[in-house]
Amino acid sequence: MLSLDELSKKVKEIFAAENFTGTPSGLYEPIEYTLADGGKRIRPTMLLASTQMFGGNISSATDAAIAMETFHNFTLLHDDLMDKSPLRRGKPTVYTKWDANTAILSGDAMCDLAWRYMLRTPHPNLHAILTSFEQMCMEIYEGQQYDMEFETRDDVTISEYKEMIRLKTAVMLGTALKIGALIADAPSEAVRVIYDFGIELGLAFQLRDDLLDAYGDTTVFGKQTGSDIKDNKKTYLLLAAMQRGDERQRAELRRFFATTPDDPADKIKAVLDIYALLDIKKIVEDEIGKHNDNALSILDQIEAKESQKEPLRQLAERMLTRDK
Amino acid sequence: MLSLDELSKKVKEIFAAENFTGTPSGLYEPIEYTLADGGKRIRPTMLLASTQMFGGNISSATDAAIAMETFHNFTLLHDDLMDKSPLRRGKPTVYTKWDANTAILSGDAMCDLAWRYMLRTPHPNLHAILTSFEQMCMEIYEGQQYDMEFETRDDVTISEYKEMIRLKTAVMLGTALKIGALIADAPSEAVRVIYDFGIELGLAFQLRDDLLDAYGDTTVFGKQTGSDIKDNKKTYLLLAAMQRGDERQRAELRRFFATTPDDPADKIKAVLDIYALLDIKKIVEDEIGKHNDNALSILDQIEAKESQKEPLRQLAERMLTRDK
Repeated sequence: MLSLDELSKKVKEIFAAENFTGTPSGLYEPIEYTLADGGKRIRPTMLLASTQMFGGNISSATDAAIAMETFHNFTLLHDDLMDKSPLRRGKPTVYTKWDANTAILSGDAMCDLAWRYMLRTPHPNLHAILTSFEQMCMEIYEGQQYDMEFETRDDVTISEYKEMIRLKTAVMLGTALKIGALIADAPSEAVRVIYDFGIELGLAFQLRDDLLDAYGDTTVFGKQTGSDIKDNKKTYLLLAAMQRGDERQRAELRRFFATTPDDPADKIKAVLDIYALLDIKKIVEDEIGKHNDNALSILDQIEAKESQKEPLRQLAERMLTRDK
Repeated sequence: MLSLDELSKKVKEIFAAENFTGTPSGLYEPIEYTLADGGKRIRPTMLLASTQMFGGNISSATDAAIAMETFHNFTLLHDDLMDKSPLRRGKPTVYTKWDANTAILSGDAMCDLAWRYMLRTPHPNLHAILTSFEQMCMEIYEGQQYDMEFETRDDVTISEYKEMIRLKTAVMLGTALKIGALIADAPSEAVRVIYDFGIELGLAFQLRDDLLDAYGDTTVFGKQTGSDIKDNKKTYLLLAAMQRGDERQRAELRRFFATTPDDPADKIKAVLDIYALLDIKKIVEDEIGKHNDNALSILDQIEAKESQKEPLRQLAERMLTRDK
């Protein structure tokens, strides 16, 4: 049994040993640049933790773990281009450092690389793993499409928003856990349950991301707070405020979220003031707590020793108390 | 045994019966738009023809055929965005009709759809089929990367160019045939040979495309002739002219291919005049003939009845005598 820290270390070693270079270098360098960087490597760690929890051999899950992280980073690469985000983890995004065409094509190649690694997974029922993976990929694209469409809509409901983050964020955590379980030949009921654990965890995780964007410590969080407000993003915070605000507050929010001033400081402050009046921070924290509780009670249902569940339980805790 | 025309009809029916719609419609409509249109459907037809030639059941190859055509159209979709091409088959390209973000994301989803269909192929050794498919995808991206890099280089050699079109165009024909053969459980030597047939055919096909761009009948070809010259594309024609021209002609060509005048008519005429002096049309026709002969002599090696080879032989002929 590896502890969570040992699993994280293992994931780091796996990526350090891997070589993402190739010819033509113009295609592969942006892939290497994106994958070399690190990030939290949550998805591959979850996948290995799931395999281990269900008694599987994590060495048979390493290719799938690499595949999952590679796919995740590919989606960030294309999303950053679509969202025109200049920075990612404090470094210039691929489309900024190179150009849009490089981001498109190296992204395509990176997605392919994810399939290459997934195809290397040594398992007699690889087909079920690949089918899950494919379904996940498509749902993530659907989530990103909703996310982009929400930018120009002012009637997004909270339930539409939750469905969007389920698709865009939670499904990948669920699928990482599911594939980890499939590799360990877990019973089909357990595979279903661990997927649901990932969904609840993912919802909590994304809501926490929304919260940190507005209330995080800039120096710790690594990006400017208030960027969602600046970019007129429909976050859970805004939707909750629109639901709870009186007519005047809703009108103000609508007005603010239709403008993009050169200096967004006043706008951010005014919106945060409305959020404060409506107690939005607490509402979102409660919602995070609810999904967190759901996740943990699902984990309790899994038939495994407490010690085997420990890394995943700890990972969930860290994800939901993180400051960045 | 289906004739080539019957196979083509079969492919048309397969696509007519398929439904590419989904939710959110903003993601799926551009896919439907791209796939509904038609085009020549060369790749799925080749795949079915290969399965049939090797005695396989073409109904077990239909999903792979759809996958191949879907992937092909996905690459066109992303390439059109990267190349800023406004028209494809006489219709606005996706990035023109919608926007760049739609082209990126719907393209990603279309690539995923290709995997979905490929995964549905009912075959005990699906892994070999998927591995071939994955390798093909990556080689096509490598080819597109070379193609884009060549645009800003003035020292591209003929052999570099041939490698680029092998990757970008020929590998897909080879792989369509290979997967068709794998589905029919053809002997491994035959799988290798039919792949090579596709490579030679693909090289001839792309060279013919270069030729048609300069010398095709606009009304038949469906796009403006001379567009490669206008866009400063390093085609086989230019590279052959650079190899055969004297110092003055090379300097002129270099100068022309560094300019993009608003009205390209004079430039196109001047370049075609140099090509005429250097007999470039005949040189390219000879090169096409060489690869065509290679392809046909490879087809002769395949152990199958002449009647079984007929559809592929006929398809090759049509591809190389096409006017559009």
